[in-house]
Amino acid sequence: MNNKRIVSGMRPTGKLHLGHFHGVLSNWLELQKNFECFFFAADWHSLTTEYANTDGIKDSIREMVLDWLAFGIDPEQSVIFEQSMVPQHAELNLILSMITPVAWLERNPTYKEMQENLETKDLSTYGFLGYPVLMASDIIVYKAARVPVGQDQIPHLEITREIARRFNHLYGPVFPEPAALLTETPKVLGLDGRKMSKSYGNAIFLSDSAEETRKKVLSMMTDTLRPFKKDPGEPDRCVAFTLHSLYVPQEKREEIVVNCRNATLGCVDCKKILAQCMIDTLEPFRTKREELAAQDGLVEEVLTEGSRKAEAVAKETMREVRAALKV
Amino acid sequence: MNNKRIVSGMRPTGKLHLGHFHGVLSNWLELQKNFECFFFAADWHSLTTEYANTDGIKDSIREMVLDWLAFGIDPEQSVIFEQSMVPQHAELNLILSMITPVAWLERNPTYKEMQENLETKDLSTYGFLGYPVLMASDIIVYKAARVPVGQDQIPHLEITREIARRFNHLYGPVFPEPAALLTETPKVLGLDGRKMSKSYGNAIFLSDSAEETRKKVLSMMTDTLRPFKKDPGEPDRCVAFTLHSLYVPQEKREEIVVNCRNATLGCVDCKKILAQCMIDTLEPFRTKREELAAQDGLVEEVLTEGSRKAEAVAKETMREVRAALKV
Ligand code: SF4
Ligand code: SF4
Repeated sequence: MNNKRIVSGMRPTGKLHLGHFHGVLSNWLELQKNFECFFFAADWHSLTTEYANTDGIKDSIREMVLDWLAFGIDPEQSVIFEQSMVPQHAELNLILSMITPVAWLERNPTYKEMQENLETKDLSTYGFLGYPVLMASDIIVYKAARVPVGQDQIPHLEITREIARRFNHLYGPVFPEPAALLTETPKVLGLDGRKMSKSYGNAIFLSDSAEETRKKVLSMMTDTLRPFKKDPGEPDRCVAFTLHSLYVPQEKREEIVVNCRNATLGCVDCKKILAQCMIDTLEPFRTKREELAAQDGLVEEVLTEGSRKAEAVAKETMREVRAALKV
Repeated sequence: MNNKRIVSGMRPTGKLHLGHFHGVLSNWLELQKNFECFFFAADWHSLTTEYANTDGIKDSIREMVLDWLAFGIDPEQSVIFEQSMVPQHAELNLILSMITPVAWLERNPTYKEMQENLETKDLSTYGFLGYPVLMASDIIVYKAARVPVGQDQIPHLEITREIARRFNHLYGPVFPEPAALLTETPKVLGLDGRKMSKSYGNAIFLSDSAEETRKKVLSMMTDTLRPFKKDPGEPDRCVAFTLHSLYVPQEKREEIVVNCRNATLGCVDCKKILAQCMIDTLEPFRTKREELAAQDGLVEEVLTEGSRKAEAVAKETMREVRAALKV
């Protein structure tokens, strides 16, 4: 087992927003410094929920990977690849499906929850039920030692560990049980105060221009109990202020807290400060992104080369799997 | 669609017995003359029920393919391959799993039936539930026009057709719906009068020596209502006589019917005639089989070459699948 190896995937949903940056991506950036990282675009996973509308997947992958690269995920340091380009994910998925009890999948808390939440989609497919098996394949085909997960994904990773254990028990020790690398991520709120999400239409994207960013920030909800500037505000109740802590330098922020509470700073001015700090922080990434986007075929090249590297590792694992299975 | 293409697989269960010969194999031999045939060793399918004991699969494949070759299945005319050597089966399986409702699989009559019949095995796995999805992949990845099936397999093929239809409906017309080529096979009885089956220990194998064959035939049940030679017998009630119709020339058989009924022919003598006819018929196959078995690496070569051919076709289909899916 390679103690330094980490696997993490992201479903292609298109351009990334700030929630992704302060969540998964800033994490990846840290991990990249200390581990051997395998980062992948989970396009097979998109099919578990998006099988009826696959039009945008290819574009989504491109936009997402451009964001990764602009943010500093580096193909020289990390293996950046596309799940569907490495056939061993599907092969191991088939093998693991043979040893995974249906009951493990049905009791997966996310399963019924997602079925209920996405009422408009038909999620009663065999592939959706088998989501944790595919996830297990994605991870253990690289013999990852650790997987960065949020608290809510722990049950999924537990199934991965159980499947690895069952394989080892039946056929001999091939797979390490990947450990959870619990990552804390600030909950980034969108313009309307709900969790930032593309589907809510409340997101700010890295690819947004300075003008778009400013416009969005200025439309952001603040402290709903402060109807007028003359009323004192409370940053702890303010939606916009959740972004201040991410973009506005501490000293300035403390000043804002005081002036909000004593009603000397109005929300429009306050959000102008925020917008400018955001634009300044994001500007280098946005410029980098534009440069990268202008390079024809860059993303394809990165993914092809990364998938080749990933496949070499996955092939080696599958050799061991077949030897253990004696097929 | 290639109107002449047929796909058919057999689970590796080791050496084949006469039930296989007069069932599947004699069918294959006929098909080989008129169609472009893809015949495969279904080793992934073995895992659906044999995942807990995979020791014998490799040997089973070798023994089974030797029987195919000895019987006249010809790698120059047909594509003879091993399922697990063609990764596109697993890839298409993953994709089809995303569009197949669990309900289609649960209502599959064979599913609950097999679970009940094989009580000693744990068949509540995700892979076992997904058996029809894998079967669909096996067939449509080659765009087969027809699939030889027995009456009992018609529901399985119907799921294949439904899955192909659903794919075409969602993503555009890629797959022909494979038609059933209903094949009639004589029910071959084993030594004890039950259906011939390796697991019942009542089977005669092509690989049995002349002496073993004779011994087995002489131990075969006859007409249980004829305790002594002096009692008249009835071939229609006689287990051994089911094999007479397959191996003893018609004229001789008619003579036997008369002499059995008038009690002038004893069962031992009658079965000696049968044994000799069987040995004479099977001798050339047995010799051929020994010759083939003596050629080191022959089966591996046939399967490697066949799998290469199969993969070339499957790859082309997967290119179309990905284009249709837009991934
Ligand atoms: S002044 Fe700033 S911190 Fe205070 S409520 Fe308005 S936007 Fe929020
Ligand atoms: S004589 Fe032959 S056909 Fe008649 S009962 Fe005996 S074995 Fe059967």
